[in-house]
Amino acid sequence: MSEDFQSWMGAVQAEVEVALGERLPAVSAIPARLHDAMRYAVLGGGKRVRPLLTFAAGELVDARPECRIAAALAVELIHAYSLIHDDLPCMDDDALRRGRPACHIEFDEATALLAGDALQSRAFELLATPGLADPQRQIEMLALLARASGSLGMAGGQAVDLASVGRPLNQPELELMHAMKTGALIRAAVLLGAASGETALSAAELLKLDHFSKRIGLLFQVVDDVLDCTASTATLGKTAGKDAAADKPTYVSLLGLEEARRYAEDLYQEACSALAGFGTRANRLIRLADFICHRPF
Amino acid sequence: MSEDFQSWMGAVQAEVEVALGERLPAVSAIPARLHDAMRYAVLGGGKRVRPLLTFAAGELVDARPECRIAAALAVELIHAYSLIHDDLPCMDDDALRRGRPACHIEFDEATALLAGDALQSRAFELLATPGLADPQRQIEMLALLARASGSLGMAGGQAVDLASVGRPLNQPELELMHAMKTGALIRAAVLLGAASGETALSAAELLKLDHFSKRIGLLFQVVDDVLDCTASTATLGKTAGKDAAADKPTYVSLLGLEEARRYAEDLYQEACSALAGFGTRANRLIRLADFICHRPF
Repeated sequence: MSEDFQSWMGAVQAEVEVALGERLPAVSAIPARLHDAMRYAVLGGGKRVRPLLTFAAGELVDARPECRIAAALAVELIHAYSLIHDDLPCMDDDALRRGRPACHIEFDEATALLAGDALQSRAFELLATPGLADPQRQIEMLALLARASGSLGMAGGQAVDLASVGRPLNQPELELMHAMKTGALIRAAVLLGAASGETALSAAELLKLDHFSKRIGLLFQVVDDVLDCTASTATLGKTAGKDAAADKPTYVSLLGLEEARRYAEDLYQEACSALAGFGTRANRLIRLADFICHRPF
Repeated sequence: MSEDFQSWMGAVQAEVEVALGERLPAVSAIPARLHDAMRYAVLGGGKRVRPLLTFAAGELVDARPECRIAAALAVELIHAYSLIHDDLPCMDDDALRRGRPACHIEFDEATALLAGDALQSRAFELLATPGLADPQRQIEMLALLARASGSLGMAGGQAVDLASVGRPLNQPELELMHAMKTGALIRAAVLLGAASGETALSAAELLKLDHFSKRIGLLFQVVDDVLDCTASTATLGKTAGKDAAADKPTYVSLLGLEEARRYAEDLYQEACSALAGFGTRANRLIRLADFICHRPF
């Protein structure tokens, strides 16, 4: 990883962390325990991959800083809420997240449920801050985030995932599930970044960017499956080997470890190719794809 | 209840039911079980008080039908998601809703959790349909709904409610809790209706309408507490006497039954007075306040 890219990542992560802290309700506001739980689940952890993608896609369009940060935070809050709900006993029942007790362990189940619910509302509230972009485009951005989050996107992917436990899925079924569960929000992160600028991309450019976003969404999941099987719980900050233990279908169980790694490389190359026409403006996106593909955790 | 008002209510309820059915994903769409649960929780029940308020407030401003119905459905979907999550074992743990098994009983907890999550997303998606209103106003409507749903509104009210079990609240504390838990979304229903027209209300008119909406939000809860203590489970379609059994503070426990009834009458009169300047345009809103105050269930 080049020094320039690493310092860019660090700067974006720091900006996102500060902005999240500022735009989540203070613990001093009633109800204090709920706000404490929301802040606990969102702050102080996470690689912020989705905000990084929003910022990187923003480089294609001269992103307006206020719009870019609102889009990045909105996507991250949706992601954070989904993790809280995923970890609940009725879902994955996981006690560990980002190396700390999961929200429902640190607080309680009811508070965790409501914290997730309220984070989803807060995501839409942030993206509905007046004046972020041309109003019509801002409404399209809100619609895009809502679609990506709902029953045909992330929440729907969770439901498909639940239904798949103990049932053999073939590769197309597995890809549909992940395209919804992880892919939809990663795609939203990229497309919202590309919508946050003064200028708009052409339809042809948007198609290419969309292809990129779908490839890295899938890439993210394939690498996740590989790491779930090869990395330790301490490294991951969440329970390792969980999918195999739960008899959930993964790319590793479907393709084997070596073939899954090769598939990740192919997806990475394909993602890069999709951006060939953008020139140096796409450098950050390509570096992020590299990071997603080759991250150690 | 006059025949005219009754037939208007029936017509709005029917329009809302049809529109909900059309704008929720079909059960045939993947993931089928999730969509089935979403439709189960939303369709075929409920008095549709919030959509009725949106429609009635729309009479103040010559509401655009497309905007009015989208606002009404968005509020109702937020309400429906909150009921699903409320009934979960980690919250109120209630098996009965609208005279039928609660969503997590009819399906399962994980599906109910995700159905609630996806209904929230769908609410914002509906209200972000392009072209409903002047775009800037539409963004303000989205922000209003998000605020009303989040940690300083409905979800926050739930958290305050949870924290209050077994703890004596005084009347101001109880009113703050209900202003958030029930009041915020009722207020949103009214204000979104008033924002769905070709014309806008003046600042002075908005203040009066806002006062009305806050009074009926509280009225709704006071009557709910009275009914919880006087009506049967069969009549309510949900478990009666639950609040007293859970040692939750209610207006009846705080004021006694007779005083709570008198308080409801006062709130009703105050709500009507707030609308005095609107003339006949406010007739439906006043009839709805009457309905909320004197409903038998």
